[in-house]
Amino acid sequence: MTRVARSPFVFSFRVSLHDTDAAGVMFFAHLFRHAHDAYEAFMTDIGLPLDALIRAGKTALPLVHAEADYQAPMRHGDRIDVEVRVADVARRGFRLSYRFLDATGQSAATALTVHVRVRPGTTGAEALPDELAAALRARQANDEPA
Amino acid sequence: MTRVARSPFVFSFRVSLHDTDAAGVMFFAHLFRHAHDAYEAFMTDIGLPLDALIRAGKTALPLVHAEADYQAPMRHGDRIDVEVRVADVARRGFRLSYRFLDATGQSAATALTVHVRVRPGTTGAEALPDELAAALRARQANDEPA
Amino acid sequence: MTRVARSPFVFSFRVSLHDTDAAGVMFFAHLFRHAHDAYEAFMTDIGLPLDALIRAGKTALPLVHAEADYQAPMRHGDRIDVEVRVADVARRGFRLSYRFLDATGQSAATALTVHVRVRPGTTGAEALPDELAAALRARQANDEPA
Amino acid sequence: MTRVARSPFVFSFRVSLHDTDAAGVMFFAHLFRHAHDAYEAFMTDIGLPLDALIRAGKTALPLVHAEADYQAPMRHGDRIDVEVRVADVARRGFRLSYRFLDATGQSAATALTVHVRVRPGTTGAEALPDELAAALRARQANDEPA
Repeated sequence: MTRVARSPFVFSFRVSLHDTDAAGVMFFAHLFRHAHDAYEAFMTDIGLPLDALIRAGKTALPLVHAEADYQAPMRHGDRIDVEVRVADVARRGFRLSYRFLDATGQSAATALTVHVRVRPGTTGAEALPDELAAALRARQANDEPA
Repeated sequence: MTRVARSPFVFSFRVSLHDTDAAGVMFFAHLFRHAHDAYEAFMTDIGLPLDALIRAGKTALPLVHAEADYQAPMRHGDRIDVEVRVADVARRGFRLSYRFLDATGQSAATALTVHVRVRPGTTGAEALPDELAAALRARQANDEPA
Repeated sequence: MTRVARSPFVFSFRVSLHDTDAAGVMFFAHLFRHAHDAYEAFMTDIGLPLDALIRAGKTALPLVHAEADYQAPMRHGDRIDVEVRVADVARRGFRLSYRFLDATGQSAATALTVHVRVRPGTTGAEALPDELAAALRARQANDEPA
Repeated sequence: MTRVARSPFVFSFRVSLHDTDAAGVMFFAHLFRHAHDAYEAFMTDIGLPLDALIRAGKTALPLVHAEADYQAPMRHGDRIDVEVRVADVARRGFRLSYRFLDATGQSAATALTVHVRVRPGTTGAEALPDELAAALRARQANDEPA
């Protein structure tokens, strides 16, 4: 949960015993849980914590797509740095990309999540709140490429 | 998710790869997830599905206590039968007990959950709805002892 | 966990309370857990249960890619049918596609997993065991298109 | 994952969206996942990281009992401090107790885990390795009472 002050945003975690399966390595689906933890920490970093957004009741940001590519196994006890970058900001949604780096800086996995803005209780995507769109674009402009 | 028509109520599942950890056996916390799945199936069986109760908005049944004892490891692919019994019905809550049996009928684990009735948006426990108390007591009277 | 004898293979489950999050709908990452449960049931259906394959020690089938598209929220208590199809069989791996259908037959989500064959303890993909390749191709030939 | 240098050992985390369920609060079983994360951090703190112990192949420390009491709901975004104390060290096992404190220092939950030492591939508990027993006793002597 530590975070280094640089661009891109970096979220770190250690692979827990419960992240692994009987094959001895991280179960693939748990990568998405960690990607979401990185996303939550990123949202807090840009000043718009997800829990506050959800409680305010005007904005939900459900995922409409998620994907991951796995390059190397992650094992119990490994420390992983997740780089989070703003890949795209559109009128009604945005894309975040993630790189999971092991202690030697090698990429163990990459992931992508696509979010749209929905107003709870209604259907259909709406325009992102201005403050969120601005914060995402500012971050995107500042990110080093992956 | 199959269920045999007898007393006690039995909920069956197969140990998935993601239930296990790098030590090769079911991670202890996942037992509680399966216990809750068994509880949800039990509530449906007594005619009071938990999702309908929660949506109706008058009754939440949060756990105030949970415990488990682990007697034997459960491995990937094992078929487990979970016996669910009503251990106790009180004015404002109830206790359920669970036995996790392997394919040979040996006990791999036991568990206990204690639930109280809360009215969403208020604090403090309240009396169980009559229909729920009656259904639990009827089941309790009918259960063979563990 | 029931399964209807037809092509494609169908795996059914009910959305548990622990599948949902505070936004009231299934947390996106849990879809991949259910996809893997469907994959495990599929492997058992074609006569090659994953737990037996892993224990035999010659074949692991790690995922190198996973993705999902979310069309409609899945809620606590919803019964979901997962259709599993063999999308592609290559020399050293295969692709499975999944459709998550709600009780009205509408698609709530789709997913794709890409698996390669690895020999535990070595690096690099190897040819699929003949028996597995044959079973996957037979199923693929028999599947109705999505 | 930050940790304050004092006794008892403290492990901190933030309640993620995926920790919660449709009732809006942390799903009870996830408390045990966080307790295990706290236990892993504790083991690293006393110089005996669990992943290294497991990989060395001579010592597994499976849980034979786990329990929790829930006093107050934990919500998305809440920061929780988990105090970990050595409750008991016996010849072949040990007990750890956990207090989950919210940002105001109120107890939201308590938990207990009981571990025994097993030699992988054999059955029956064995004496704790001397180094582990000594480290646990030293910590126990140093802990402030809960």
